[in-house]
Amino acid sequence: MMDLDLVASVARETPSKIILLVIDGLGGLPNSETGKSELDTACIPNLDQLAAESACGLIDPVFPGITPGSGPGHLALFGYDPVQNLVGRGVLEALGIDLELKPADVASRGNFCTLDKNGLITDRRAGRISTHESAPLCQLLDRIEVPGMRLSVHPVRDHRFVVIFQGSGINDGLTESDPQKLGVSPLEVKPLSPQAEATAQGVNVFIAQAKDALRCRDVANMILLRGFSRSPTLPTMKDRYRLKAAAIAAYPMYRGLAKLVGMEVLPMGNSFEEEVETLARHYGEHDFFYIHFKGADAAGEDGDFASKVQALEEVDSFIPKLRELNPDVFMITGDHSTPAVLAGHSWHPVPFLLCSQWASPDDVKELSERACASGALGRFPATHVLPLAMAHALKLTKFGA
Amino acid sequence: MMDLDLVASVARETPSKIILLVIDGLGGLPNSETGKSELDTACIPNLDQLAAESACGLIDPVFPGITPGSGPGHLALFGYDPVQNLVGRGVLEALGIDLELKPADVASRGNFCTLDKNGLITDRRAGRISTHESAPLCQLLDRIEVPGMRLSVHPVRDHRFVVIFQGSGINDGLTESDPQKLGVSPLEVKPLSPQAEATAQGVNVFIAQAKDALRCRDVANMILLRGFSRSPTLPTMKDRYRLKAAAIAAYPMYRGLAKLVGMEVLPMGNSFEEEVETLARHYGEHDFFYIHFKGADAAGEDGDFASKVQALEEVDSFIPKLRELNPDVFMITGDHSTPAVLAGHSWHPVPFLLCSQWASPDDVKELSERACASGALGRFPATHVLPLAMAHALKLTKFGA
Repeated sequence: MMDLDLVASVARETPSKIILLVIDGLGGLPNSETGKSELDTACIPNLDQLAAESACGLIDPVFPGITPGSGPGHLALFGYDPVQNLVGRGVLEALGIDLELKPADVASRGNFCTLDKNGLITDRRAGRISTHESAPLCQLLDRIEVPGMRLSVHPVRDHRFVVIFQGSGINDGLTESDPQKLGVSPLEVKPLSPQAEATAQGVNVFIAQAKDALRCRDVANMILLRGFSRSPTLPTMKDRYRLKAAAIAAYPMYRGLAKLVGMEVLPMGNSFEEEVETLARHYGEHDFFYIHFKGADAAGEDGDFASKVQALEEVDSFIPKLRELNPDVFMITGDHSTPAVLAGHSWHPVPFLLCSQWASPDDVKELSERACASGALGRFPATHVLPLAMAHALKLTKFGA
Repeated sequence: MMDLDLVASVARETPSKIILLVIDGLGGLPNSETGKSELDTACIPNLDQLAAESACGLIDPVFPGITPGSGPGHLALFGYDPVQNLVGRGVLEALGIDLELKPADVASRGNFCTLDKNGLITDRRAGRISTHESAPLCQLLDRIEVPGMRLSVHPVRDHRFVVIFQGSGINDGLTESDPQKLGVSPLEVKPLSPQAEATAQGVNVFIAQAKDALRCRDVANMILLRGFSRSPTLPTMKDRYRLKAAAIAAYPMYRGLAKLVGMEVLPMGNSFEEEVETLARHYGEHDFFYIHFKGADAAGEDGDFASKVQALEEVDSFIPKLRELNPDVFMITGDHSTPAVLAGHSWHPVPFLLCSQWASPDDVKELSERACASGALGRFPATHVLPLAMAHALKLTKFGA
């Protein structure tokens, strides 16, 4: 029996409530000028106070040294093996905009990009054109017809969209057309197995027609496709852990991840303030709440130390509102670290706190990488987060006689 | 997918450089008179300064409570499962003297020993006779012929040699002739399965003839064989982790271990000073350097607390020279602990430090068992060392979307 199967086997339904606040990209590294990380620098009295009242530790999202994408980072926190259950980017994006995927459908993430006159990529995100501008372009692409397959194009946000390929024999074993660098041409999509040859051919026809349809534009005059994938079949959190779980996330991809494990995605607007209000409004209806804060990761990815500090201060200001709900277990962590000095996701373990009447006390007095390293929970894999949450919410019965 | 396979799957080649200094037997225990361990006692300002600038932790070489031999201790540090890939002592010794083993060959470690007139062992190492004296004895044994097998005898160093047994049906499932204690007779070699019966018989014939050939001598008048083994087939570090790895080790066995994972063994003399010079001379040619310091383990094995302290002070004096190379990642640890008070390898976790621009800072100010216990890296299996090294050298790409 796998460890998480063991946890599932002793799960029981109770009225106790768990809130998991994921501060995306929470962990950081010191700024070379100050020697202080983003968390060290930020003025976050509410998070520090909560850390002082909590059991703290550091989590490894996937494995020490491994830098996770958002998919594995979140699935681990939800109690699913992030390596066994790898989710393609195309599927994530599709789920995030409420597309229903059939098991055979192949989803691909798409970007509008900009090519120069020689056909070389000058901007992989087409100046991050607005949804207002990109939506009609998606309609244009949606009209493309390719023999032997059905396809549909769906706007996501800004320069991003999803393409769904359907039809008998459609296969997701494809290389990507996005070279992930500038100054080169988009790549031809190639099959990874003979079974994927027809799909690769069809996708290349689609890309060629898309280029033709966009040819008169200065920006957003081409597309890049990546993350061809099919939806994995995961048991719901209800079936597996007996949790009635709800997700509150402004960004589509995170809603998509939550749907994958059967969470109910609560309808809401775009700000974190609305997320918190949504959680409060639906607090009676569920017993597990995943609430997602994006700002810290976005600033970290931009390499903007000051903005990440500001994002952390922003989320700090909402902590009292969340605490007012008085959940039996309140956990805060990230799906991965995004140190501003690295301007990207990283492998560094992520600060973690668990506040509960039944948590082991420790001497941690603030939420930071350094402080959490000496917390009572030590350093542990992110797949232990859900078991710990359920245990502290008294939702796990005794194992063995 | 196993964790280390996952790491291998995201490995990429970059010019960044990693140095792994293995201080053999690094970890220790307090002397009962002072309450201080060898590391606490030694004056090691360079190691302490490095620890202060590094992320620290404690590693379990194989598993908590398990005392590892040098084989598992090193293989784990090189990123290979030390239990799945157990290497026999005979194979290690053979590789360390540049013998090429075919997959079917069986290698055995040999000792010259001394028997009294009653045939009982009085010295398992024959007074550690010199290589000068033992090499001609090996030539003598090499001439022995045993029906049904080919054999060859190769001097290693001092009282130690290797016997290679070859032929169809040769089997390594054999008990050892070395009883590993004094005042008893050497043991008969027994087959561990019916398939090994013929080999056991042949080996016993060889031992009897060796005894006869040495019968006129006062010391080194008998041999002891142990560690009958075949070479495991391991992927190289180049194939598995895309690392161009080099080994610098004065002692044959450690060179043998490095060869097993495809490291290039750099030619050199016998002192640690020469090891450091060799590393510096070849620094441009590789991206992963394993450098081995033997003195701490040797003193610990002898139960000589003061000598182990001195050995640690010796290695400390070379740290500045290694730091001058300015590697992207500099790691120091041991393959196991060898507390002088136990006069042997032990199960205690081993201090570990990792110095890199991207390491998480912690409050550890010195290299010691106690200080490292509160380091940012926590306590972790030695198989995580290579993934951490590669991550901090930016040699691992993101996992999942």
